[in-house]
Amino acid sequence: MTVSRRLFLAGSATAATAASAGALASCSKRDAGGASTSEPPSNSDDTPQPLRDAIVEFDGPHQAGIDTPTQASLNLIGFNLRERADGPAITRLMRVWTADARALCSGETPLGSLEPEMNEWPANLTITCGFGERVFDIAAPGRKPEWLHDIPEFTRDQLEEKWGQTDLVLQICSDDPVMGAWAMRHMTRAGMDYVDTKWVQQGFMNAYGAIPKGQTPRNLFGQVDGTVNPHADEEFAEQVWIDEPEGVAGSTSLVVRRIAMNLDEWELLDRASREEAVGRTLDDGSPLTGGDEFAAPDMEATDQYGLPVIDKNSHMARAMPPADHPEQRFKRRPYNYNLPPEPGSGALSNAGLIFIAFQKNPDTQFTPVQARLDEVDRLNTWTTHIGSAVYWVPPGTSSRDGGDEYWGQSVLEA
Amino acid sequence: MTVSRRLFLAGSATAATAASAGALASCSKRDAGGASTSEPPSNSDDTPQPLRDAIVEFDGPHQAGIDTPTQASLNLIGFNLRERADGPAITRLMRVWTADARALCSGETPLGSLEPEMNEWPANLTITCGFGERVFDIAAPGRKPEWLHDIPEFTRDQLEEKWGQTDLVLQICSDDPVMGAWAMRHMTRAGMDYVDTKWVQQGFMNAYGAIPKGQTPRNLFGQVDGTVNPHADEEFAEQVWIDEPEGVAGSTSLVVRRIAMNLDEWELLDRASREEAVGRTLDDGSPLTGGDEFAAPDMEATDQYGLPVIDKNSHMARAMPPADHPEQRFKRRPYNYNLPPEPGSGALSNAGLIFIAFQKNPDTQFTPVQARLDEVDRLNTWTTHIGSAVYWVPPGTSSRDGGDEYWGQSVLEA
Repeated sequence: MTVSRRLFLAGSATAATAASAGALASCSKRDAGGASTSEPPSNSDDTPQPLRDAIVEFDGPHQAGIDTPTQASLNLIGFNLRERADGPAITRLMRVWTADARALCSGETPLGSLEPEMNEWPANLTITCGFGERVFDIAAPGRKPEWLHDIPEFTRDQLEEKWGQTDLVLQICSDDPVMGAWAMRHMTRAGMDYVDTKWVQQGFMNAYGAIPKGQTPRNLFGQVDGTVNPHADEEFAEQVWIDEPEGVAGSTSLVVRRIAMNLDEWELLDRASREEAVGRTLDDGSPLTGGDEFAAPDMEATDQYGLPVIDKNSHMARAMPPADHPEQRFKRRPYNYNLPPEPGSGALSNAGLIFIAFQKNPDTQFTPVQARLDEVDRLNTWTTHIGSAVYWVPPGTSSRDGGDEYWGQSVLEA
Repeated sequence: MTVSRRLFLAGSATAATAASAGALASCSKRDAGGASTSEPPSNSDDTPQPLRDAIVEFDGPHQAGIDTPTQASLNLIGFNLRERADGPAITRLMRVWTADARALCSGETPLGSLEPEMNEWPANLTITCGFGERVFDIAAPGRKPEWLHDIPEFTRDQLEEKWGQTDLVLQICSDDPVMGAWAMRHMTRAGMDYVDTKWVQQGFMNAYGAIPKGQTPRNLFGQVDGTVNPHADEEFAEQVWIDEPEGVAGSTSLVVRRIAMNLDEWELLDRASREEAVGRTLDDGSPLTGGDEFAAPDMEATDQYGLPVIDKNSHMARAMPPADHPEQRFKRRPYNYNLPPEPGSGALSNAGLIFIAFQKNPDTQFTPVQARLDEVDRLNTWTTHIGSAVYWVPPGTSSRDGGDEYWGQSVLEA
């Protein structure tokens, strides 16, 4: 069925009123605490509620959801513009989406929403928007970044069209999966006059507070994954945020690769073989040449037989930027996926990684690394790239003095 | 591809050693805290870690995962026995599964697992096992509960075979989706010589600490869902735990209904219409006749026009046990699902509820309520039952004095 935005908005004539009433009622309920006059809820212990008031600032020089600590739940949605969508339509969509995302991430009720109760506790919700090539072709052809094109197809790629490039992307992350689902629902509905959903990539990482502080999370191969990420602001400035020209400064690029991981065969390996394939220990992710997770690997070290301790074909060795190309670094923000096994496949699993990478320029950062891995990487035996897309991620927005900016404004208005 | 358990076990000859080593290394790492000698992780703030040591006791008079507070992540897996599986095979499977589930839920490494790091923080992991009719037919035909048969098909049902009855079920719940995925992975692999996965129903509820304490969660219609659940032990004794005979005492039944919810059309309603359909306010789930969420509804109250305040056809009114059938209550433990829209359907959503109900006897508790709802329930316009299955849930186990019990032992050994 199709639902028109007119009807949706008509139905929400009383939304603002309902929203305020809802918010007020909830506040009084919160203040009243456990002062219920009838049967009390059973769950009245003193467990902490660390997510109760967890809000990630929506506005800022960069969009949130990039240097934000990885939340537990991901809905990455690829949208295609409807046929009639022209430049002005894209601008209208961006106005609506930005305003609604700003409200949702702040725990407020977007205009036209009849569900204020679903938006109360964002749990670190971030909504990050990216533009595919076609948005520029339609609305700002002269401003398309030169790197905004398909990642070249690699020898080992088995790309499926259903996980391919789209015109727009929303990366919706929250530590509460209910909030994440609701934000996906709201944003999809808010955009329905302009876009259709092409795919949704749903993933997860560790829950807030589930693993020790500062511990780099693991993927479903059991590997500590994300050690070489930028942490400090200067590293983000170097690797991620585009500097110029004005209006584009603060933007970045998002590359998403859907990587199927063959758990069934991976798990036949003993631990030593798994560690050799990666070049790091499974225990804590430290290089096989010693030190802790963040120690520099010693690529020259050999064992008592004169063999390299870290295999030159290991994932770590191949992914490392060569000495003359220190720019080959980027921010990895991967999520696991774990779907039911395909019926009839005989497989026990259907799992992998939604590998999201942010960098200034995929052509000089992501692509050379992936080309090297595609050529040789011992992990390749168990991994297959099945989806690929690239987006420009507009700079962050400002809502100062009531002049609310929208995503991509500097480019769309130019 | 198929992986034999022999190979799997052969590969894990060093598992026990690796596991202890891993556990030791991890402990020392935990104790060492932030004493890293190289680049420190960025995420070193003082946020609480409430899930770090959250463990739900596996053994006890009842299986965990029934009266346990609902965790954030659900993997409900329906398995069918392989053709050659006879009574002794089922017993072997139960021995393996129970021992492995006990280890996983305790944060220990199951025998044969090479991934001790994945099992360290269970985050309230529970694994609950249920037997379909066929397990009794094969292994204990004389002991099959009389209620263990398909729920009668109702007029409005649109049941899909792919969500139908299976021989066994595992309900895997954790507050950490990574732990949940890993437990699903491990249990599937551990059972692969005996069972095939028929379906996996994946769902979610609010993250731990995401909504205020004691607040009943909401489904994706925005409704407070679960108000009438048993809370006190006496209520569970009355509604859920089977009392006799010995060996069966402490068991219960699990009914799972997959209920598609048409969000696209639901959201066309204004708030008043949504509340009338349910009989409760959206704001806090209180009956439309006043009081708080747990207040008794006044079914006789009328408004200034003499019309009932709570529609007799509302969901609440129809679901309520009639005065002469107070036994028509049960424990609801529902999870939301929110999948990508079906390509080409034109729908904006593909969402609903994995409705899990625990009761002594579906024939006298679940079924009469559902029959009444099927006949008339204003919510029916937006909900469709598309899957159904029923299981006997064996009593809890004991591991005292080293004599580890396994699921269904009293029945399988009788």
